[in-house]
Amino acid sequence: MSILVVGSVALDSVQTPFGRVKEALGGTATYFSIAASLYAPVNLVAVVGTDFPQEHIDFLKERGVDLKGLQIVRGKTFRWSARYDYDLGAAETLDTQLNVFASFHPNLPDEYKGSDYVFLANIDPHLQLEVLEQVRNPGLVILDTMNYWINYKKEALTEAMTAVDIVMINEDEARQYANTFSLMRAVREILDLGPQAVVIKKGKYGACMFCDSANPISGCFFAPAYPLEKISDPTGAGDSFAGGLMGYLARERDISGEAIKRAIIHGSVVGSFAVEGFGVDRLRNLTLEEIEGRYQEFRHFTHFEPLEA
Amino acid sequence: MSILVVGSVALDSVQTPFGRVKEALGGTATYFSIAASLYAPVNLVAVVGTDFPQEHIDFLKERGVDLKGLQIVRGKTFRWSARYDYDLGAAETLDTQLNVFASFHPNLPDEYKGSDYVFLANIDPHLQLEVLEQVRNPGLVILDTMNYWINYKKEALTEAMTAVDIVMINEDEARQYANTFSLMRAVREILDLGPQAVVIKKGKYGACMFCDSANPISGCFFAPAYPLEKISDPTGAGDSFAGGLMGYLARERDISGEAIKRAIIHGSVVGSFAVEGFGVDRLRNLTLEEIEGRYQEFRHFTHFEPLEA
Repeated sequence: MSILVVGSVALDSVQTPFGRVKEALGGTATYFSIAASLYAPVNLVAVVGTDFPQEHIDFLKERGVDLKGLQIVRGKTFRWSARYDYDLGAAETLDTQLNVFASFHPNLPDEYKGSDYVFLANIDPHLQLEVLEQVRNPGLVILDTMNYWINYKKEALTEAMTAVDIVMINEDEARQYANTFSLMRAVREILDLGPQAVVIKKGKYGACMFCDSANPISGCFFAPAYPLEKISDPTGAGDSFAGGLMGYLARERDISGEAIKRAIIHGSVVGSFAVEGFGVDRLRNLTLEEIEGRYQEFRHFTHFEPLEA
Repeated sequence: MSILVVGSVALDSVQTPFGRVKEALGGTATYFSIAASLYAPVNLVAVVGTDFPQEHIDFLKERGVDLKGLQIVRGKTFRWSARYDYDLGAAETLDTQLNVFASFHPNLPDEYKGSDYVFLANIDPHLQLEVLEQVRNPGLVILDTMNYWINYKKEALTEAMTAVDIVMINEDEARQYANTFSLMRAVREILDLGPQAVVIKKGKYGACMFCDSANPISGCFFAPAYPLEKISDPTGAGDSFAGGLMGYLARERDISGEAIKRAIIHGSVVGSFAVEGFGVDRLRNLTLEEIEGRYQEFRHFTHFEPLEA
């Protein structure tokens, strides 16, 4: 069961207290694709410039990522540079050069239009809406976003959130969206738009999911983050999380609430590996066996009393 | 099985964006005692001044808290005043008047010296050590502390940590103690001192426990915080957590690793109620039935796949 992702492919320059990379393979759709392709075939829709290194194209193809939807446009590839402080929390963006991404519009190849699993990575919500206009009856659509779109495109973002199955958003951004200090109030407000679930990303504190705006505690689910001794680079953690989550669901062909809980654990596992290396490095050689190993560890992390059937 | 707690009894003046209290019943040993007394008898060792309201004494007695160890000394009771901002994270201390607490030394009544369960609330580690000199073969000693003692009494604190079974500490303070940005490295350093376990308090992100410094992931346990729509006053959350935790263990007469995991959930439940009211208000009328209700909810919060026996 293949997955469609629409987002950015970029060249990232990142510095952390533990090292730096310059113009390395990055972008939301890239992290997602590399992660999800461990589980299922991925169809990627994005844009790069004519300067985009062939080796990255080759690598994505090797991973089974279909690139028919990758537009290669005369000009320079989207570039992002950022710095992280010791707490490795939010990135401080040093420079953003949209380049060919500035005039990007997603054009889905015909064979992508029947995709069952769709991930709208963090891009302009108008572009996310353009994707939704092109897909036919997808089984599961997940949307990610960020503070920039809440600030400048809130109306379009609201329209997009209303039209998807799962909204995935950082804790602070959820509160910003709803203009409240209460995460639970923000969760209610987003669920009231219509999505079946909202997945709140909390970085080093893990993730949680809420499904019912009338009673958010009913059916809510909390996943801790894997306890890491060393984090090299948090870039792409959220997209890797989304890739593991959606990859698992596509592989299992199951989008039940219980499957989504297991998928959140898969996302947490993949995200934990992603941040251990710089850029996409750790994801390059990550295996399903390694994922399975940490998944089994997660089963013990939160276990305190069995649930009777 | 009764519990000994040594800590502070205070009159707190607290303001949050949602209200304020003036000279209300507070202090680390107070929150702990009120919480733990829901589960088991509590013996309290602390000091108050002659100005301490009789109604508070009466209330603690009603809760089954034995006050033979409560010294009443001519002078004023310890007063603390603080303010919380909207994020309700760390308190900003506005004023601390130690008053009679400045010359406090814990004197354990003889019948307390055989206590099986001992909670050394957040006080000067020299006083914590004085308590340890007086107790005989306790089954379980838990120590709490704070940044102030790390800054000014680190040697004594280290000695106390070395002598207890469980160190309970805020995430930031653990990292401060070990002078590292890595929580896992801090956990290793504290475990290397000798305690069987370290419980890391993460406020609205819950709590986690680690037991094995050679392999901290083995046997680690994560508890989320109960998802609250409204928090009135975070004061005493950690002591209420400790009270629920140790109260449960004392009631069950079980200090196995598995019992401690369930106890952490009890602590999380009691802490979640504590912060819903101002000061100790919500704990005053809290019932075991209410605790059991939230405990059962916690069983579902993190469940994604059964653990085979």
